[in-house]
Amino acid sequence: MRIVALAGGIGAARFLRGLKVAAPTAEITVIGNTADDITLLGLRVSPDLDTLMYTLGGGIDDTQGWGRDRESWHVKEELAAYDYGPSWYGLGDRDLATHLVRTSLLDAGYSLTEVTAALCHRWQPGARLLPMSDDRIETHIVIEDTQGRRAVHFQEYWVRLRAEPAARDVVVVGVEDAHPAPGVLDAIGQADVVLLPPSNPVVSIGTILAVPGIRAAITAVDAPVVGVSPIIGGAPVRGMADKLLPAIGVETSAVGVGRHYGGRGGHDEQGAHDEQDRGGLLDGWLVDTVDADATVPGAIVQAGPLLMTDVPAAASIARQALSLASAVRR
Amino acid sequence: MRIVALAGGIGAARFLRGLKVAAPTAEITVIGNTADDITLLGLRVSPDLDTLMYTLGGGIDDTQGWGRDRESWHVKEELAAYDYGPSWYGLGDRDLATHLVRTSLLDAGYSLTEVTAALCHRWQPGARLLPMSDDRIETHIVIEDTQGRRAVHFQEYWVRLRAEPAARDVVVVGVEDAHPAPGVLDAIGQADVVLLPPSNPVVSIGTILAVPGIRAAITAVDAPVVGVSPIIGGAPVRGMADKLLPAIGVETSAVGVGRHYGGRGGHDEQGAHDEQDRGGLLDGWLVDTVDADATVPGAIVQAGPLLMTDVPAAASIARQALSLASAVRR
Repeated sequence: MRIVALAGGIGAARFLRGLKVAAPTAEITVIGNTADDITLLGLRVSPDLDTLMYTLGGGIDDTQGWGRDRESWHVKEELAAYDYGPSWYGLGDRDLATHLVRTSLLDAGYSLTEVTAALCHRWQPGARLLPMSDDRIETHIVIEDTQGRRAVHFQEYWVRLRAEPAARDVVVVGVEDAHPAPGVLDAIGQADVVLLPPSNPVVSIGTILAVPGIRAAITAVDAPVVGVSPIIGGAPVRGMADKLLPAIGVETSAVGVGRHYGGRGGHDEQGAHDEQDRGGLLDGWLVDTVDADATVPGAIVQAGPLLMTDVPAAASIARQALSLASAVRR
Repeated sequence: MRIVALAGGIGAARFLRGLKVAAPTAEITVIGNTADDITLLGLRVSPDLDTLMYTLGGGIDDTQGWGRDRESWHVKEELAAYDYGPSWYGLGDRDLATHLVRTSLLDAGYSLTEVTAALCHRWQPGARLLPMSDDRIETHIVIEDTQGRRAVHFQEYWVRLRAEPAARDVVVVGVEDAHPAPGVLDAIGQADVVLLPPSNPVVSIGTILAVPGIRAAITAVDAPVVGVSPIIGGAPVRGMADKLLPAIGVETSAVGVGRHYGGRGGHDEQGAHDEQDRGGLLDGWLVDTVDADATVPGAIVQAGPLLMTDVPAAASIARQALSLASAVRR
């Protein structure tokens, strides 16, 4: 079975770790969000790809969900002593080695796809990890605070400002001219199941879908497409999706996100679409038991416990998602 | 009193730490060798400047003489796990922060002089530390081993190959077109004393003197010029100068190095010079008591214990050098 999953960072990584347990023989291709990527001190950092690689490869700090296990912070301490660089960003010593290898290979002319494969050669994540694009794409958040209205890099909004200023808009710089990375569209086209793990619908799944060609490839697949809600009972399972959903006019709820993705069958029932209509994505939408009353036109909604407290819990959620995929198979 | 010292790494740094004790009110300008500098994983490393800065600023690993105190090696461990990068080079975590700051500032367009001043703002080395040049200069060693005759970067020769292959020649790439860094010639011209600490005569003092203008500035100063022998009883105090002196046809001895630098008075006694003659450098040459019989035409040779076993010993050597400078004052 060929499974393709779009993926942000922590939520997706934990779900996918469960998926590997739930479907040990499946060929899993993970299309990772790269719009969070940032250059810090000349180092190219890919937070979501690294979280996926470390989590699936057994090198993650499992308590915080990001960064390396057995991490130390001596470089960061020294940078602080120099009063230089982004003190707000968690550049651990071990993690930094990954950025050094990535930056050095990118500078040598390799693509992010090739670099990611090289890094995964060490980590053996048990899935093919592809960046959504080899082109440079950056999510900027338009905020409004005491300094007025301005745009900041997503990492600055998320990590330095802790998503506290109101997000007025989300601008994915460079995405219109970007291309899906090699292998991405083929993987989607050949998938037996496409999964949307519980990632941020705006700055993770949303940015992947914004790469020209990816959304259309998913709406066109014969394979069932199943999403797992990142929202339980009106709040994000983790992260701060509730800070960003309002900026794109989506309610922070399982039903809100489900309808934002849209049901694939719904449009047929609703009749003709205008040109702006992008078509729904979901055949199935998995929500938590507390959201069992959710409905998404054109998709089958199923409920079950969605808290990924540990790997078996994540595996159980993955099994539900695969079972829903079988049920909705077109 | 304005003291100018040319300086390589460990030997010079320890001597200068003693000099600060011996002459606490002196204005010391250190002209550091940059021909050892190397780019590793995209990071610009200046081993001699860093050794000087860390030693004088209290951040050195005093046992090994180079690198940071309280150092950890997690980045290096990770690079090894990726099987990537120069495993032979000692890139410590804390040290790496210095290279990140340096590289980032150089990339932003600052000169090495400016970057060194910025780094020293933290370390407060108690001396003005100037690179010999802002231009890129690299010492390559021509070696001959089982792989044939070839040139390798000095760091590769010194650190990776441990100076084992015979050095056939020393090529200082880029030095002919280099310029002394801002402040270097002025500092020499205004000096009350010029010192040549016990550094490698070939790849430390030799490369500084090879920057067009520096040697001429020293031979022209009114101030006394005093050197301290890096060779005691036919062997380098530390380092591997004995591996490189033969490549430039100089005997590994206090008298060999002294005569290589040359006495400033000697030439007058010897009469006319041809155009190749570059003029002697030394008014005074301080050698170890075991080398008390050394003579350098045109320079006054004085003997004393030269083993820098600790800071007081280094201070005592510095006092001898300053006292010799007074004695030879022209």
